[in-house]
Amino acid sequence: SMRVDWDIETAEKGGFDHFMMKEIYEQPKAIRDTLASRVKGNIVDLSQEIGLTLEQIQNIEKIHFVACGTAYHAGLVGKYVLEDLARIPVECDVASEYRYRNPIITDRTLVVVVSQSGETADTLAALREAQKHGARVMAITNVVGSSVAREADDVITTWAGPEIAVASTKAYTSQLIAIYLLGLYFAQAKGYKSAEELQGIVTDLLTLPEKVEEVLKQEKTVEAFARSIAKHNNLFFLGRGLDYAVALEGSLKLKEISYIHSEAYAAGELKHGTLALIEDNIPVIALATQQSVFEKTVSNIQEVKARGAYVLGLAVEGDTGLIKSVDEVITIPQVSDLFAPVLAVVPLQLLAYYACVERGYDVDKPRNLAKSVTVE
Amino acid sequence: SMRVDWDIETAEKGGFDHFMMKEIYEQPKAIRDTLASRVKGNIVDLSQEIGLTLEQIQNIEKIHFVACGTAYHAGLVGKYVLEDLARIPVECDVASEYRYRNPIITDRTLVVVVSQSGETADTLAALREAQKHGARVMAITNVVGSSVAREADDVITTWAGPEIAVASTKAYTSQLIAIYLLGLYFAQAKGYKSAEELQGIVTDLLTLPEKVEEVLKQEKTVEAFARSIAKHNNLFFLGRGLDYAVALEGSLKLKEISYIHSEAYAAGELKHGTLALIEDNIPVIALATQQSVFEKTVSNIQEVKARGAYVLGLAVEGDTGLIKSVDEVITIPQVSDLFAPVLAVVPLQLLAYYACVERGYDVDKPRNLAKSVTVE
Repeated sequence: SMRVDWDIETAEKGGFDHFMMKEIYEQPKAIRDTLASRVKGNIVDLSQEIGLTLEQIQNIEKIHFVACGTAYHAGLVGKYVLEDLARIPVECDVASEYRYRNPIITDRTLVVVVSQSGETADTLAALREAQKHGARVMAITNVVGSSVAREADDVITTWAGPEIAVASTKAYTSQLIAIYLLGLYFAQAKGYKSAEELQGIVTDLLTLPEKVEEVLKQEKTVEAFARSIAKHNNLFFLGRGLDYAVALEGSLKLKEISYIHSEAYAAGELKHGTLALIEDNIPVIALATQQSVFEKTVSNIQEVKARGAYVLGLAVEGDTGLIKSVDEVITIPQVSDLFAPVLAVVPLQLLAYYACVERGYDVDKPRNLAKSVTVE
Repeated sequence: SMRVDWDIETAEKGGFDHFMMKEIYEQPKAIRDTLASRVKGNIVDLSQEIGLTLEQIQNIEKIHFVACGTAYHAGLVGKYVLEDLARIPVECDVASEYRYRNPIITDRTLVVVVSQSGETADTLAALREAQKHGARVMAITNVVGSSVAREADDVITTWAGPEIAVASTKAYTSQLIAIYLLGLYFAQAKGYKSAEELQGIVTDLLTLPEKVEEVLKQEKTVEAFARSIAKHNNLFFLGRGLDYAVALEGSLKLKEISYIHSEAYAAGELKHGTLALIEDNIPVIALATQQSVFEKTVSNIQEVKARGAYVLGLAVEGDTGLIKSVDEVITIPQVSDLFAPVLAVVPLQLLAYYACVERGYDVDKPRNLAKSVTVE
């Protein structure tokens, strides 16, 4: 009966009002579980799940990340990670575009498909198209035995556990972890970075679960900001490099459940058009976690401030240079540029959640959207 | 004195109310001039401007298109064109991202920078960065003797003539023509397509100026649609493949001068988020010029119609399948998928123009934007 179902659902939410918030808080565990058994003495070992030999890895000429929605945003991070750690050229494509655009694939192309459910129709079709053209296909998925997992040549499972809310949270951060592991595994094989350097990077990677816990403590600050901007129907996200990839994901979260028309922009592109839309009090969420482009990003933030935007800045602890340029600040713990996305996305997930609650919409089941898009 | 300046300006507008409209109407001439002297007996000859030998062209391993704003959208078309005609893998990057992300460049990488003014700061910096890493750099620019033209190893000049309006129109379509010429020139060298097939493609290319003239005749239809949607502050563009690249450009035009928050989406990605934003009467401009994905696009259009969107469809003459799925239709003459962007963008330029006029803004000098972004 309804009553029993409801009781079960309440129990499953583990004390949270919605699945989405429960899943946001499950991220430290999801990350720990996805790391577990794959890191041994600061060495990444994926030999149990990836059949590629050392020689095959060294022979990879290019990688195509192919995915939809949130998983596509994980792929955008994948481009940076694989190019930086393993120096393999990467393209990242939306699956519904990739499958129809006659991509250039050789037997030295590795295609990596990313799908939480492993049943996303366009992603599955892209996998088949890539295999038909001779590519080896690797899957990053959360569901063991899913179609994508069964048909791929290699599978890295994200151990995020079942994700119920339509807006993906813990699946995304677990996909990022799988991508870091892949990047480090390939980097060990390629030898562009020293073993010592790579082990230092692995040490950093292992600190992410507790750092995500630190970020979650800022929930109330994010909630207050969300309430203050919830009446707006338009806002913008800005960032450079990996911050731009995270901005796209934060913007999608907000769209999906709060129905605010939010758009993410590469901060350097502002002057080429979007700056025309910045007017008094329009909310802008500016990500400035990347040390390598910090000054450039602050300069872009000052441009939107000068035009009256109400800016929430997202920075790494201790970056006092940002505080005077923005209206509100949220900080993440000290972290390398490469791993900042795992921490930076968490406040953006909370922001989407509270904007949705404040606007009175259904957090876990947004209108028009399905959890797993199994049709084209 | 002011009075004399004003008289000169009026004279320079050649009877049009604004430079932007004058420049929209100059596109057939700009395209003809950019084609002229480069096509001889259905063979493309760029040997006067490109110093690459046949062997050097055959040795190109990958191409990076790098640009900002509208020129970046031309580069997105370039990815399709070069991959399709010459089967060389292409990446397309925003200059402000490319220069800081440590891209993988070898001496077999050709970097193509695109800039109307030839002075765009980020594009110039990207050119220098690429050369420093050993890449050969080709420039597509409208200004002979500009910084980009002087520093590039090869230059293809677009002969669009001076562009005064901040919102770029004829420079964009001329950039597309330069890209088609480059694709055909490389295709002749690579030999993936037969000489006969390539000559057929060149014949099609030469019909574009008169087809643009045909599209311009629909100005009044576009004006009426623009007036009907001008009160909206949010709208969406949809398209697949090359239509998506054009949708991004159409959306940017509208943002730049009408200040409507417009966003372009790869139609297949709708279900992964943006569909949540589609509600009663929200305007959607749906591009369906690509025959290879026509049915898939119509299916996406039906999804937004089912949720109450007010849809303007853009299709090729004779595609009656679209008419029953949309509220208004604008057609372009029959054209191959590859060349459709040159025609499809014209109604979108007119749409931005009339939305701006109807909303009462300054067409030629939008707020916050400069014609040529010579600072970072």
